[in-house]
Amino acid sequence: MGAKRPDRRGFLKNSAALAGGLTFGAAAPALGQEQHGPQMIHEGKDQIAYGDRSRHVTSVRIAHGGRPSPDNWGLTFHIAAPLQDSVGVITPSSLHYIGTTRGSFLPDIDPKEHRLMIHGLVDRPLTFTMDDLKRFPSVTRLHFIECAGNRSSRRAKNVQETHGMTSCAEWTGVLLSTLLKECGLKGSATWFVAEGSEEVKGASSMPVAKAMDDVLVAYGMNGEAVRPQQGFPLRLMVPGFEGIFHTKWLRRIKLVDRYYMNYNDFGHLDRDPKVAALDYQIGPKSVITFPSAGQQLPGKGFYEISGLAWSGGGAIKLVEVSTDGGKRWNKAEIKGTAQRMAHARFGLMWNWDGKETEILSRCTDEIGQVQPSREQIAKYWNKPYDQTFSVPGLDNSIQPWKIAGDGSVTNGFA
Amino acid sequence: MGAKRPDRRGFLKNSAALAGGLTFGAAAPALGQEQHGPQMIHEGKDQIAYGDRSRHVTSVRIAHGGRPSPDNWGLTFHIAAPLQDSVGVITPSSLHYIGTTRGSFLPDIDPKEHRLMIHGLVDRPLTFTMDDLKRFPSVTRLHFIECAGNRSSRRAKNVQETHGMTSCAEWTGVLLSTLLKECGLKGSATWFVAEGSEEVKGASSMPVAKAMDDVLVAYGMNGEAVRPQQGFPLRLMVPGFEGIFHTKWLRRIKLVDRYYMNYNDFGHLDRDPKVAALDYQIGPKSVITFPSAGQQLPGKGFYEISGLAWSGGGAIKLVEVSTDGGKRWNKAEIKGTAQRMAHARFGLMWNWDGKETEILSRCTDEIGQVQPSREQIAKYWNKPYDQTFSVPGLDNSIQPWKIAGDGSVTNGFA
Repeated sequence: MGAKRPDRRGFLKNSAALAGGLTFGAAAPALGQEQHGPQMIHEGKDQIAYGDRSRHVTSVRIAHGGRPSPDNWGLTFHIAAPLQDSVGVITPSSLHYIGTTRGSFLPDIDPKEHRLMIHGLVDRPLTFTMDDLKRFPSVTRLHFIECAGNRSSRRAKNVQETHGMTSCAEWTGVLLSTLLKECGLKGSATWFVAEGSEEVKGASSMPVAKAMDDVLVAYGMNGEAVRPQQGFPLRLMVPGFEGIFHTKWLRRIKLVDRYYMNYNDFGHLDRDPKVAALDYQIGPKSVITFPSAGQQLPGKGFYEISGLAWSGGGAIKLVEVSTDGGKRWNKAEIKGTAQRMAHARFGLMWNWDGKETEILSRCTDEIGQVQPSREQIAKYWNKPYDQTFSVPGLDNSIQPWKIAGDGSVTNGFA
Repeated sequence: MGAKRPDRRGFLKNSAALAGGLTFGAAAPALGQEQHGPQMIHEGKDQIAYGDRSRHVTSVRIAHGGRPSPDNWGLTFHIAAPLQDSVGVITPSSLHYIGTTRGSFLPDIDPKEHRLMIHGLVDRPLTFTMDDLKRFPSVTRLHFIECAGNRSSRRAKNVQETHGMTSCAEWTGVLLSTLLKECGLKGSATWFVAEGSEEVKGASSMPVAKAMDDVLVAYGMNGEAVRPQQGFPLRLMVPGFEGIFHTKWLRRIKLVDRYYMNYNDFGHLDRDPKVAALDYQIGPKSVITFPSAGQQLPGKGFYEISGLAWSGGGAIKLVEVSTDGGKRWNKAEIKGTAQRMAHARFGLMWNWDGKETEILSRCTDEIGQVQPSREQIAKYWNKPYDQTFSVPGLDNSIQPWKIAGDGSVTNGFA
């Protein structure tokens, strides 16, 4: 292999965002660098078996404020992922957001004892052990989940508070359609009710057409068993639907001939069963994770603006970023191949001139849906667009971040 | 959405592997199912911040036997991933295999203090902080790493022992080519030496052409910071090359005009520097992870044979599975889209008749390389193919698993 020789400063020359030819100011010349060997730590047996992150990495989830557990039993209702520290598209399982119906209590299930029953309007009701489920053809797919209540507010101080109720993981399991074919659907089966193992069941009604399309009975998450906080040992993945439909600790699926109202309907944004059941597709939505509110740019010069985009309508096809408050929009790079109903990571090189501005992102999905502005959402709901802004449905509006002259970043809605 | 009505037993009808029309015997009829609510556990603050797996999940890495740390300082030289329990393509960071030069000691690095220096045959030597590196355009890619010594033996009792020295993760970082363009490569720079932070440096020489192609200076792994056992805060990813080239705790890259021999050359299979430096491309290789040695089939009937395939030559294009000791080969399904230099998950539905047999997998990569049999490898090296079988290079041979009449699975090489 012969060495290729790029031009000196090739990166700067080739970068459209840096067409002004500014130099990279931050890296220091490598003169007289002295590096002493770091301290060594000794690995214990636990670290050989199952390793931890560095003690210097302190990124954590936070209890999502403002909304108590509906049954007042739990200390914490919702837990948000630290999107401001995210890289790539996968959310580590330890940091995946959590929406609960039961606060900080959760079922402790022995997978050997766990069963999934499918019954109701089927020819042959069946009960599956975990080992049974693993004998069927498996699928592995990257999918996001998002809480329907995930939205920005004037009070939110960072992207964890504005958008942290969404995460993305590699899910492995068996298609629900495979199991339903095994049971034999009766012609009258038009809806199904999925029920979890906690006392309140966490049940939801969904159309059978969705079940036959892409719903997954997942036992694997990011290469290992689904985590307890995500429904161990079994979670229903309903790609693109509101998070509440992704039934955790899944134990029963009943095929029925009508919409069944149940506990989870009180978790929907609209408590009218019909609206709740037919208004569940998420997005399209995007947010810039760097730079985002609470972060600080050390000075002018180039940065990669980085963020996440997702939609219940399919794969993300386009992400645009504005660095001048929405006057001009630049096509961002989508990193890798965007997957259906999965987070996509985008990036745009930006040469900050050190002046106050506002940055925003918006996305378009594969069926042509475009992320709306907040004004458009207000207009759609016929609500005033002022400080009282509040909509009864999903809020997938464009998030503005303000950059001050000193490089500090704040919420553009504040 | 109207409900689609599949034929009763559609799965069985549609499955080629089950063309005989055998019924799924394992699932029990859902009659009189009784499920008491499971025990509830209360989540502590730690679990809100950064969650754990279920106490019922006990899959762990193991110290890989047989090869002591070369400097005799460490208790454990190599740690193997539990592939027998793997699902999907991502290896959880806590279970990613570890190859070390220092045994169970590892550097404890404060990322604020860490620097990467690029020097030698460049126009402008530079030193980068972690924050500097994150200002460059990022890339996110799925890549496997494999230890060159990863191979089966007659003594190995399960797939963790035969193949556990490979793993796959989502890596995020900046392309080394981006940084080299920033420094400006001199025409005489034909090799580079990458050096880690531990005392023995863990240095390797690699061709500059590889650096300009796809080498990644990675700070992210599976959505968070690279783990300490994988080189926190910075690891060099050299897609498709032997694991030893993936320099951990990366602190320095020197551009040079020749191959530099160094500590890591003693980790290569061949200690001749020229051979070691030019014989580093992994695979093509595949292995069945279920059913694999040490596992037990509960009885005849259908199963999904599942496994992993990977190659340093690019993406996996074809995986074939034989269930009759290699007489006939069936095309397996590759789950999702196989990525370049990444594990691909494959599956094949199999209806086991309860009789003794041998199952095997072989793969073909995008440049047409086919995984060889062990006989072919022996022939290539002009070595006897008997119980003394041993080759001085990579061993990417086909792994046979024996299935006994009682469903027990053992190593076909034993």
